[in-house]
Amino acid sequence: MKTRAAVAFEAKQPLEIVELDLEGPKEGEVLVEIMATGICHTDAYTLDGLDSEGIFPAVLGHEGAGIVRELGPGVTSVALDDHVIPLYTPECRQCKSCLSGKTNLCTSIRATQGKGVMPDGTSRFSYKGQKIYHYMGCSTFSNFVVMPEIALAKIRKDAPFDKACYIGCGVTTGVGAVTKTANVQVGDNVVVFGLGGIGLNVIQGARMVGADKIIGVDINPTKEAWGRKFGMTDFVNPTQLSTSVVEHLVALTDGGADFSFDCTGNVNVMRDALECCHRGWGTSVVIGVAEAGKEIATRPFQLVTGRNWRGSAFGGAKGRTDVPKIVDWYVDGKIEIDPMITHTMGLEDINKAFDLMHAGESIRSVVVF
Amino acid sequence: MKTRAAVAFEAKQPLEIVELDLEGPKEGEVLVEIMATGICHTDAYTLDGLDSEGIFPAVLGHEGAGIVRELGPGVTSVALDDHVIPLYTPECRQCKSCLSGKTNLCTSIRATQGKGVMPDGTSRFSYKGQKIYHYMGCSTFSNFVVMPEIALAKIRKDAPFDKACYIGCGVTTGVGAVTKTANVQVGDNVVVFGLGGIGLNVIQGARMVGADKIIGVDINPTKEAWGRKFGMTDFVNPTQLSTSVVEHLVALTDGGADFSFDCTGNVNVMRDALECCHRGWGTSVVIGVAEAGKEIATRPFQLVTGRNWRGSAFGGAKGRTDVPKIVDWYVDGKIEIDPMITHTMGLEDINKAFDLMHAGESIRSVVVF
Repeated sequence: MKTRAAVAFEAKQPLEIVELDLEGPKEGEVLVEIMATGICHTDAYTLDGLDSEGIFPAVLGHEGAGIVRELGPGVTSVALDDHVIPLYTPECRQCKSCLSGKTNLCTSIRATQGKGVMPDGTSRFSYKGQKIYHYMGCSTFSNFVVMPEIALAKIRKDAPFDKACYIGCGVTTGVGAVTKTANVQVGDNVVVFGLGGIGLNVIQGARMVGADKIIGVDINPTKEAWGRKFGMTDFVNPTQLSTSVVEHLVALTDGGADFSFDCTGNVNVMRDALECCHRGWGTSVVIGVAEAGKEIATRPFQLVTGRNWRGSAFGGAKGRTDVPKIVDWYVDGKIEIDPMITHTMGLEDINKAFDLMHAGESIRSVVVF
Repeated sequence: MKTRAAVAFEAKQPLEIVELDLEGPKEGEVLVEIMATGICHTDAYTLDGLDSEGIFPAVLGHEGAGIVRELGPGVTSVALDDHVIPLYTPECRQCKSCLSGKTNLCTSIRATQGKGVMPDGTSRFSYKGQKIYHYMGCSTFSNFVVMPEIALAKIRKDAPFDKACYIGCGVTTGVGAVTKTANVQVGDNVVVFGLGGIGLNVIQGARMVGADKIIGVDINPTKEAWGRKFGMTDFVNPTQLSTSVVEHLVALTDGGADFSFDCTGNVNVMRDALECCHRGWGTSVVIGVAEAGKEIATRPFQLVTGRNWRGSAFGGAKGRTDVPKIVDWYVDGKIEIDPMITHTMGLEDINKAFDLMHAGESIRSVVVF
């Protein structure tokens, strides 16, 4: 079949809107019509050539929502017309990681995902006979995609695609880091470094679970209004302080944060995030992706005196189990998404979404097919 | 009153055995006759002048066991003739840390402890009119000491002092790191870096809770026999490998350790200990004390993919609550101490204990008064 898609033919070049050939679903696979997709920093990271493992030409995009249009043989977990969110972190429920009950990092198809192909080792996209690679196991910048059924979260039908797609990455990454990875409890004090889309979702996750102080930290003063909109109680601009940001935050939280979250990807900020945690139990969660080769560091005394350093990928959420619950939270009004979708456009304007992101002018841009 | 004690008049000099004057217990304080004391690396660290916050002259020692001989006004939690272990980490049950239920790091008397004095700001030791400082709130190299009652664990009377004293630091630090800080579960795979006294106690803690693989790592081949005596199932000598120790351990554990423990104080080993943990859930616990100024480092990707970096002080054990249980485990035969006490001597020979430690010829030396 044919599908309209935005293709990254090479790094550092605009995407091109073309008609691709798409092979249909095989055993255990599903054809999904993508109805909307968000444009995430990770797409830009790859397109800008910063990801040393980036593969081209490829159909980028990993934050989508759509409808099941065709089932391959043996598919049992979704049906025609189901609404689904593609999962770049699948949930096979069979591998050592899934069965451990201790992580969301399913390993069943990791190897082929990293190579830009389907689990059988083939790509299903081609353009005039040239192979086009998949991306993060999703490729949501295409109107139609083929997905393994283990990489589809079935969601309720009353969630609008142009909002629910954001749950495919950003919302889950932030809200899940609070509810799944950190398991923040009512009354905890929380510090969030970096008030982009992930940081705002951490903030609203903390609000949802009843955190006391929700302190946002950003060097950009325009972020204060955004943070307060989603539940931030205090704003700290490190460039405006006479003390170190760690000293300031420890004083503001009467001894340190119960939980802190790095949503910047800056390894120096990650250190501050750890060191502003409360002696004895404070836990810092790294969410941001650092530049290749960068390392985090601290004195081991910080750990010996009871601070915990952790990380979170896809919010610690199991895709098929937890993502549908987050959609419920959105539809039920426990979390907000609509005000975060600052721009909506057709596929033909997708390059503008990257421009808006680079200019810091969007929280989230969404393409509607 | 008078007490016989080994005094560190200055750093890098042998201890001197002298008679000190000792003021009796004040409100909330207790006079304890120390019956036996271990000699720990931390005492040597201070005596060798490596601790920039070391105070002299002082009565060192923090790993003792003894008998309550006199009660100050208002003491309710111990009685005359009770057997007790002095606690360098007290348990006041009133401070924010104690009440949190999330840490053993009671803060009630931390400030004065660090200054070598009792909670009222005075020292009770003097020698010919010269003030002699306390050490780690214990000073167990003195036959009699004054302790705040919140820093005394009441233990059963059938535990021999010359073995129970080791529970005052080394045993609890190792066994507690497994049972309290890490909460290792039956069937977990554990890697222990450094097979000194702490490492051996981590090993026997892991054996007690039913760990599967208990892998000891040490560059000293003579440690293998010691490790196996306490439950080590596999020994790894990094100098004998053709691959990196991390690769070797990940292969040996089918993907990585569920828990690893650093008992070396070497920051490079701490990194290996983290990186040999299993993707998704492996937790590394730093126990060893690093040299001043040294930092730990890793790529944040290690955390984002699910490894946890933590630390443990005094094994995460609450002194008055957990230490008596560890004494029970010893008397009941769940853990062993006797074979670890390699040398027993009188106070007059205490400097030999430091020589044995520096020569690597002791697991634990104990002075019996």
